[in-house]
Amino acid sequence: MNNHDAKGITRPWTVSRLSNMSDFTDHLQPSQPNGPEILARKRAQTHIPVDELAHHLLAHDGYLERQARILRIVEKEPLFDKKRQANLSREDLFKLALARAKLLRRLVDKYGWDIDDYKMAETLVDDVSPYYLHMHMFITTIREQASDAQQAYWLPLIESFKIIGAYAQTELGHGSNVQGLELQARWDPGSKEFILHSPTLTASKWWNGSLGRTANHAIVVAQLLVPDSGGEYQSHGPHPFIVQVRDMQTHQPRRGVVIGDIGPKFGYATIDNAYMLFHHFRIPHSALLSRYAKLDPDSGQFSKPAVPAVVYGTMTYVRSLIVLQSRMALARAVTIAVRYTTIRRQFRDRDDPKGPEVAVLEYPTVQIRILPLLATTYVLHYAGQAMQRTYREAREQIQAGDFSGLAHMHSLSSGLKSFCTDLVADGIETCRRALGGHGYGGASGFIRLSPDYLSRVTVEGDNWMITQQVAAYLIKRMQAAVTNIDSVTGNETEDPYKEFLRANRDGVKLEPYKVFDDDSNIVRSFHRRTTALLYDIYVERVTKKRTWTSLMTQLHRLSHAQSLALLVEIFHDTLQNDRSIPQPAKDTLRDLYLLFAFFHMETHAYDFFRSGAVSQRDLDELPNRVRQLMARIEPHAVALVDAWKIPDYLLDSALGRFDGKVYEDLFHRAHRLNPLNEITINPNYWEDELVKGDGGGWSSVLAKL
Amino acid sequence: MNNHDAKGITRPWTVSRLSNMSDFTDHLQPSQPNGPEILARKRAQTHIPVDELAHHLLAHDGYLERQARILRIVEKEPLFDKKRQANLSREDLFKLALARAKLLRRLVDKYGWDIDDYKMAETLVDDVSPYYLHMHMFITTIREQASDAQQAYWLPLIESFKIIGAYAQTELGHGSNVQGLELQARWDPGSKEFILHSPTLTASKWWNGSLGRTANHAIVVAQLLVPDSGGEYQSHGPHPFIVQVRDMQTHQPRRGVVIGDIGPKFGYATIDNAYMLFHHFRIPHSALLSRYAKLDPDSGQFSKPAVPAVVYGTMTYVRSLIVLQSRMALARAVTIAVRYTTIRRQFRDRDDPKGPEVAVLEYPTVQIRILPLLATTYVLHYAGQAMQRTYREAREQIQAGDFSGLAHMHSLSSGLKSFCTDLVADGIETCRRALGGHGYGGASGFIRLSPDYLSRVTVEGDNWMITQQVAAYLIKRMQAAVTNIDSVTGNETEDPYKEFLRANRDGVKLEPYKVFDDDSNIVRSFHRRTTALLYDIYVERVTKKRTWTSLMTQLHRLSHAQSLALLVEIFHDTLQNDRSIPQPAKDTLRDLYLLFAFFHMETHAYDFFRSGAVSQRDLDELPNRVRQLMARIEPHAVALVDAWKIPDYLLDSALGRFDGKVYEDLFHRAHRLNPLNEITINPNYWEDELVKGDGGGWSSVLAKL
Repeated sequence: MNNHDAKGITRPWTVSRLSNMSDFTDHLQPSQPNGPEILARKRAQTHIPVDELAHHLLAHDGYLERQARILRIVEKEPLFDKKRQANLSREDLFKLALARAKLLRRLVDKYGWDIDDYKMAETLVDDVSPYYLHMHMFITTIREQASDAQQAYWLPLIESFKIIGAYAQTELGHGSNVQGLELQARWDPGSKEFILHSPTLTASKWWNGSLGRTANHAIVVAQLLVPDSGGEYQSHGPHPFIVQVRDMQTHQPRRGVVIGDIGPKFGYATIDNAYMLFHHFRIPHSALLSRYAKLDPDSGQFSKPAVPAVVYGTMTYVRSLIVLQSRMALARAVTIAVRYTTIRRQFRDRDDPKGPEVAVLEYPTVQIRILPLLATTYVLHYAGQAMQRTYREAREQIQAGDFSGLAHMHSLSSGLKSFCTDLVADGIETCRRALGGHGYGGASGFIRLSPDYLSRVTVEGDNWMITQQVAAYLIKRMQAAVTNIDSVTGNETEDPYKEFLRANRDGVKLEPYKVFDDDSNIVRSFHRRTTALLYDIYVERVTKKRTWTSLMTQLHRLSHAQSLALLVEIFHDTLQNDRSIPQPAKDTLRDLYLLFAFFHMETHAYDFFRSGAVSQRDLDELPNRVRQLMARIEPHAVALVDAWKIPDYLLDSALGRFDGKVYEDLFHRAHRLNPLNEITINPNYWEDELVKGDGGGWSSVLAKL
Repeated sequence: MNNHDAKGITRPWTVSRLSNMSDFTDHLQPSQPNGPEILARKRAQTHIPVDELAHHLLAHDGYLERQARILRIVEKEPLFDKKRQANLSREDLFKLALARAKLLRRLVDKYGWDIDDYKMAETLVDDVSPYYLHMHMFITTIREQASDAQQAYWLPLIESFKIIGAYAQTELGHGSNVQGLELQARWDPGSKEFILHSPTLTASKWWNGSLGRTANHAIVVAQLLVPDSGGEYQSHGPHPFIVQVRDMQTHQPRRGVVIGDIGPKFGYATIDNAYMLFHHFRIPHSALLSRYAKLDPDSGQFSKPAVPAVVYGTMTYVRSLIVLQSRMALARAVTIAVRYTTIRRQFRDRDDPKGPEVAVLEYPTVQIRILPLLATTYVLHYAGQAMQRTYREAREQIQAGDFSGLAHMHSLSSGLKSFCTDLVADGIETCRRALGGHGYGGASGFIRLSPDYLSRVTVEGDNWMITQQVAAYLIKRMQAAVTNIDSVTGNETEDPYKEFLRANRDGVKLEPYKVFDDDSNIVRSFHRRTTALLYDIYVERVTKKRTWTSLMTQLHRLSHAQSLALLVEIFHDTLQNDRSIPQPAKDTLRDLYLLFAFFHMETHAYDFFRSGAVSQRDLDELPNRVRQLMARIEPHAVALVDAWKIPDYLLDSALGRFDGKVYEDLFHRAHRLNPLNEITINPNYWEDELVKGDGGGWSSVLAKL
């Protein structure tokens, strides 16, 4: 460890602490067999070519080269050292994050990093940066929604960090329902200004990242109110404005604006989510972002074309990134879980009571939690890639004036965002619990990963809400199939619906798919399950006219079923068609495919049975197949996580270290890095003294309450 | 808020901050209808007599009276104020917890509190106290395992807090497998002392609460090594010793002992979990707790009777407390979720686009997450009570020399601990996510509840491991039933097995239970599902001689199925037989019973189908029934959580306040209580300054890394 900070100042505690630390524990070793030995053996035994597999997964766009290059730089900066950060207060975590954000931005200048380099550094340092919204949503909104003139003015200021921006849409009382926002932007024809005003407390902006303490500018979304010819104000719905909210010298909120940080959260301690209210605050005409929406300052005439299709495209792209980012978050959890449970021994085999203690990952009760998630990392990887391909194709179509793929793409991305982030949020926690007691410790590598990731299930469209869009889209497709039940259109979605509908009409019982005979039958069985769920809903909604609300739980299930079927299909297609998969890894990747499919099929067995997709005999056989697959995969699990090439620096986990020195690192962090061990307390309840020798009683802690 | 600390010192920030705070937000109100209005309407409309229901649930043992009395005392102590504590560093949280622990102990003296009063105060303050192990496991072990002479010496020191103790069993390398512990206690016949020695790093004690910084004594569990007649050391397995580990004056570890706190964790920041190692550390003969185990100091002869049955009884009692404590943890989460989603409005009805925005709890997609958990709070309450009854009965039997109920009781308590804490850990997170964005905020009331509770699924027996004990017990019962297949013994467990076995033998198809016709048929259907799962395992294990390990996932499922059936049965029995249930609440409690049962039946529909417990027609009808039940329960949900009588002080949640002032409190906490808003930062990346006017660059944060 480097004991100099960026300016070469020796940190005094480092020396004094190390000199105090010599004791009889210095030369103790863990009991045998130790972690390095165990992992080395596993790595020697596998047939998986780890580097080739990593290359297949991650080499395009120069990801692996970039990671190695950036890692070398960030890892040696003392400011980016993570080992003691979990001890800090919220305020210190935020200050640290700000210092880190500044340093990262300086490294951009120093090394000439491009945006991908910068994002890689951000990922490795693993703080959600106070500049995050400036670098992402703020600049993106200006690029997409500002007029050419506005861009010419603002972009140089943004790119040079002369101003720092944020994005303020969500309010205290309104999140997902953007139409319901309460903040008003009233056009004053006399002064030719807009007047921003928060009429209620619930109109307060809320959650807006980077704005609570950092940004001096913000995109502010407000209800645009414009007087009609009779002078009555009419609402034109929510529109984005660019607003300077803080003084550029004092950094205080401008008069008529109240801003602050909303306080501690479940995770994301390093970012300043804001509240913000306005009191009759005037902004110029030029504040309205006017690439599309326009308000004539002289006539007061407002015009706005339908939202351009390309906006939905961007959303799909963002969601494909969420899926790809999710697979790496899950891969972090699974890497830790696989390595640690391979090393950890507990209990002798009940049928072999004289044998050695068994590695935890050899227990099916541990495998069933971790190995389907290991498969999921691969599933999500291929799904994210497929989403990006779909996005590129749709974009080309749209530019050629063809908007037909848009609804499909939007539905696809909503459903997958919801389903995949659910899988990952739950999967991270499943991995953590599979680590037993040490999974609860600070050296597990989950102490920041888990709470930070949990934000994903409610942001960018709450996972239980956006699935309605998928269901609505699918119902339309089913309606189309019903209307043209006997025609074959070559449409991949509708044709299977029609087969199902005709069988239903003609009283023909469709044969269950023989899922153990042919891998593509597995894909078909997932689609038939979805089709049956969809048909039931179609009957309820379209035929029986049931209310939308009363069907909501079924709609959500339908969407998840559809997403699951897509994941299975994409994985299957990849295994069939992707020639970059290294030959020696193919059989094991196929095992992962089967495990993922059969695991989920067993979970939803009743659906598969009811829809006639799989026979009862096959369904009853699933637990055996799953167990056999897990036993086949387990010896290669270490190699399969190694292929994700997640650096120890990012994992920040004693349990998940590449070298397997689990117990040495757990002890090192506790014994040598824990600041709480630098104070000696007074345990006597009749004495006020808390820390020996600090003189004070408890007034010092009381003052912080 | 009281702005004086315990000694009457005015906290300066309180005044200055309040005087700075006046701004245009002071008089803003949330949009209409507001929370208080909405909750008042709900409370006026219900037929649930909340106070009577609360009395039925909680009045025995004086719980409600005690809560009110203790609350009045703790609520007015500034040291117990929770609103800003989430901002503190680990070190300050620990110091605060120590100060609070001291104050609580002083209040015991001041008010003459008994142990139940003290535990109530601990629950309300909601810190896991640095004295926790001293007050619980340490003193309990002395009472149960120390000889009379040892008790006479130690108990006065413990009760007066002259010494502070902890319990050190778990090691870095060994948790659940106590037999595998590595720490040695070697008997030295010459000096008549034991020598404690940690031969490896993995022999380090680990996780031991209250020991890292606080305790000066500990129960230390070590492998007892005694020389046999030939002078060869023989292991007698793990035994408890009482050891002074810190100097009583300096509070430093004694020579030959290394102790420290293991560092930050997922939750439980307020307690000092320890590591501890020994280097040839000598302790006297009297250190061995010798109520049962005895070592003759002269002959070196060791003797120990079989573990007395009553020890298992205690474990059952502890686990019944875990279930009861769990229901209150879940009730906290559900109280917050029900109140907030009743108040929160989002989106208009798709079939009524001109109507007002809909309360979130009116959406079935929100109901399906929260209302089955509301039912679960009641289920767990009755289950915990039933466990305590079983414990009392078994204890009476044991004292009369009848040990026949012991295995059943042990199995029952293992299974319910695992299943119920799983339900609650997952349920708390489900509630949190159902709150949308605000569930991620610090004012949600989940920021401490969630991570603290998550420890429950791995401590006191990992949830995936202890279920094996249940399965092993059930297999024996099935074997007994197979052996006596045609006799009727009146045994409630075995007779249904025999009915199942005979039908199976005779090729008779058992009729599915008509679960919508008779509530007791529901109970029978859950038992038949379990019986079928058990029978399959019996065939695999006993007939086909499959290895235990290969069956582990099925064993776990079996245990959970058995526990679920018990929960359903206990709830049903209570509704039938408990005359203290207020008449007007009965129908709604029955709805909760049906919802709980049908919700889980739907989740496991394939099991119910396969075992012939429920017909396909009835299974297909479940989603409708669940929806109807939820719609019937929703209007009374606020009353049903009110009945748990959880004080706002314990909830510490803006979202879950009894009075419904959700938005006012969210804003108050952000705008007036967030210390981060007291600093103004410098956002320019080319300047080192982080906080305006503090002069320093980032060396101050760097020093804390």
